[in-house]
Amino acid sequence: MTYRGDVSEHLHHLYPAQRLDQARQAAAEQGLDALLISPGSDLRYLTGYQAMPLERLTCLVVPAHDEPFLVVPNLERPAAEDSPAGSLGIEITGFGETDDPYALIAARLPDGRQRVAVDNHMWAEKVLAFRAALPGVDLSLASAVLCTLRLRKSAAEVEALRRAGAAIDRVHRRMGEWLLPGRTERDVARDIADAIVEAGHVTVDFVIVAAGPNSASPHHEPGERVIRPGDPVVVDIGGTTEEGYCSDCTRTYCVGDPPAEFRELYAVLRQAQAAQTEAVRPGVTAEELDAVGRDIIAEAGHGQHFIHRTGHGIGLETHEEPYIVAGSTLALEPGMAFSVEPGIYLPDRFGARIEDIVVCVEDGGERLNLTSRDLVVLPA
Amino acid sequence: MTYRGDVSEHLHHLYPAQRLDQARQAAAEQGLDALLISPGSDLRYLTGYQAMPLERLTCLVVPAHDEPFLVVPNLERPAAEDSPAGSLGIEITGFGETDDPYALIAARLPDGRQRVAVDNHMWAEKVLAFRAALPGVDLSLASAVLCTLRLRKSAAEVEALRRAGAAIDRVHRRMGEWLLPGRTERDVARDIADAIVEAGHVTVDFVIVAAGPNSASPHHEPGERVIRPGDPVVVDIGGTTEEGYCSDCTRTYCVGDPPAEFRELYAVLRQAQAAQTEAVRPGVTAEELDAVGRDIIAEAGHGQHFIHRTGHGIGLETHEEPYIVAGSTLALEPGMAFSVEPGIYLPDRFGARIEDIVVCVEDGGERLNLTSRDLVVLPA
Repeated sequence: MTYRGDVSEHLHHLYPAQRLDQARQAAAEQGLDALLISPGSDLRYLTGYQAMPLERLTCLVVPAHDEPFLVVPNLERPAAEDSPAGSLGIEITGFGETDDPYALIAARLPDGRQRVAVDNHMWAEKVLAFRAALPGVDLSLASAVLCTLRLRKSAAEVEALRRAGAAIDRVHRRMGEWLLPGRTERDVARDIADAIVEAGHVTVDFVIVAAGPNSASPHHEPGERVIRPGDPVVVDIGGTTEEGYCSDCTRTYCVGDPPAEFRELYAVLRQAQAAQTEAVRPGVTAEELDAVGRDIIAEAGHGQHFIHRTGHGIGLETHEEPYIVAGSTLALEPGMAFSVEPGIYLPDRFGARIEDIVVCVEDGGERLNLTSRDLVVLPA
Repeated sequence: MTYRGDVSEHLHHLYPAQRLDQARQAAAEQGLDALLISPGSDLRYLTGYQAMPLERLTCLVVPAHDEPFLVVPNLERPAAEDSPAGSLGIEITGFGETDDPYALIAARLPDGRQRVAVDNHMWAEKVLAFRAALPGVDLSLASAVLCTLRLRKSAAEVEALRRAGAAIDRVHRRMGEWLLPGRTERDVARDIADAIVEAGHVTVDFVIVAAGPNSASPHHEPGERVIRPGDPVVVDIGGTTEEGYCSDCTRTYCVGDPPAEFRELYAVLRQAQAAQTEAVRPGVTAEELDAVGRDIIAEAGHGQHFIHRTGHGIGLETHEEPYIVAGSTLALEPGMAFSVEPGIYLPDRFGARIEDIVVCVEDGGERLNLTSRDLVVLPA
């Protein structure tokens, strides 16, 4: 179930009030007049309010030189006031079904406003409505301000990610209960989904179960393929905890003995991924970290089969900055959390992926997923 | 679990290939050069491909005077080809981790392109990337083209909505199993969520359980409030079926005898909502339909307590056109499907809502939710 539930009081330490102030300062430093934050992870990050993006506008307005305020549809005002946003001491202002919230917000921005940044995930219909309500104003992306805040996790956030990692590990440890020959990918996926909730998540975010030739498709959707002896199976799963933090972990299994060629491919991958997690430390750039694994894989003759980046950041969203990809010169810093998930895929034959979430710490990296990374061979 | 699963073959009749052609024609008629459709309900409507909106671009390009093509990240190419989009006969083109898909698309649009419409739900970061890649091009919303297609459901779509409605009715019929005094809203919500899946949905979209004073908050999130004898409880629930169509139905219950004042309020609401569902027929405008219920409620002295519109359209999304709201002169036509859900809310005391999905048919309206709309009094 997509459990929206706002942040309960015992979680407020994860959503400290000073983030609004940090965002405002950062906006001012970048010469912006205001931030416009619509429902999504940035709104949650700044206020603890977990609103769904829907057709009516909900928007947190963060002026660079004035108090922030939250604009909500009238019918959602009680829910907004009950949420942590209601105890932040910020103004919550409602609008009716026939009011124009875009005009309302435009009227409250300072005269002479020139540069406004919008939530990266704001829907086009809302972006274009703001464009119309703010003629002549330059619209840019709020990530320029918020990314730097969300990139560096606090100790409390790292602890929340640690708990999420431990929860998804509990699911991977039980894989032998469900991953049996004769069952379809979809059957197995359903069991995994139930287990993700039992293990301590409030939502199941994704379940990839890719068996046999489907293991060569990195984002394969579980389907009707029946799992057969000798099938490699890539299992990439994750959920969100009550605290709002995401888990994401991939392990590759084999039901019965895999082909020798697969074992060789897996050995290369195992070495590459381990070298990458070992290489994490402050100062290493994202592209350098990507290259550590990519070079090992290329050296073994599989360069053209590693068809995606090494990883993505993780936090309130499964995918966020920093992306561990060729071309990114971002230097890792303590507090950054991201996946290390190289893969090798032989089209129409088989593939493998190993993924851990790693947090960069002062003297290296801490893995948050601790089940064995060796190929797990399950009974056929 | 958010089950993404693409449209299985037995469902292809719900996603007919000619929609792409209809979209292209409509774009041409509106003087647009192309539509850019990102993951979401419009992409599913046009191709059956149910991609998740993520940071990498996935985009269906529908030129007004050329063949459509689907741009996907390389790692998702196998999954896209396996999806119904792969059997539409359209080109699927991949891009690598360090490629620029926006430039790729811009290069393929005709020279002299001036007007491009983007998916209404495309993320700002993608909208602004297209803006940068298409200097001088007017960006507008694809709803101008797609809304008219999605507004009028085919017979197959109405049948799919009928099945979704019957499924959510099965859940409401069982409410007495879970809605018991001494339990929290959240406990009840969990049971309802399980039942929504058991009844034949693949995802649970939302579960509102609002007891006692929380019933006065239309979008209340189930929380720790313990249900007590005498509590009115608004239960607004819905899910998505495997076919991709949504259900949405609200009933108001009372655990034990409600206060007399609540019974009076409910009687007014009951009369208003029934008058509205009876009033549905081709030619009635959305605002007229809204007024049918609003006038009855206002006449009873509760006008200021009916704080939202009468309803929203429904189909591949829970909320879509047509919105049944004051100010909309859209005339209902056969095939339009929407909710009729007036409510009366006394702040901090209690409230009620009754919701049915109705399809406009040639000679009136067909309700798709058929459980009793009388106040359901459950044992205390």
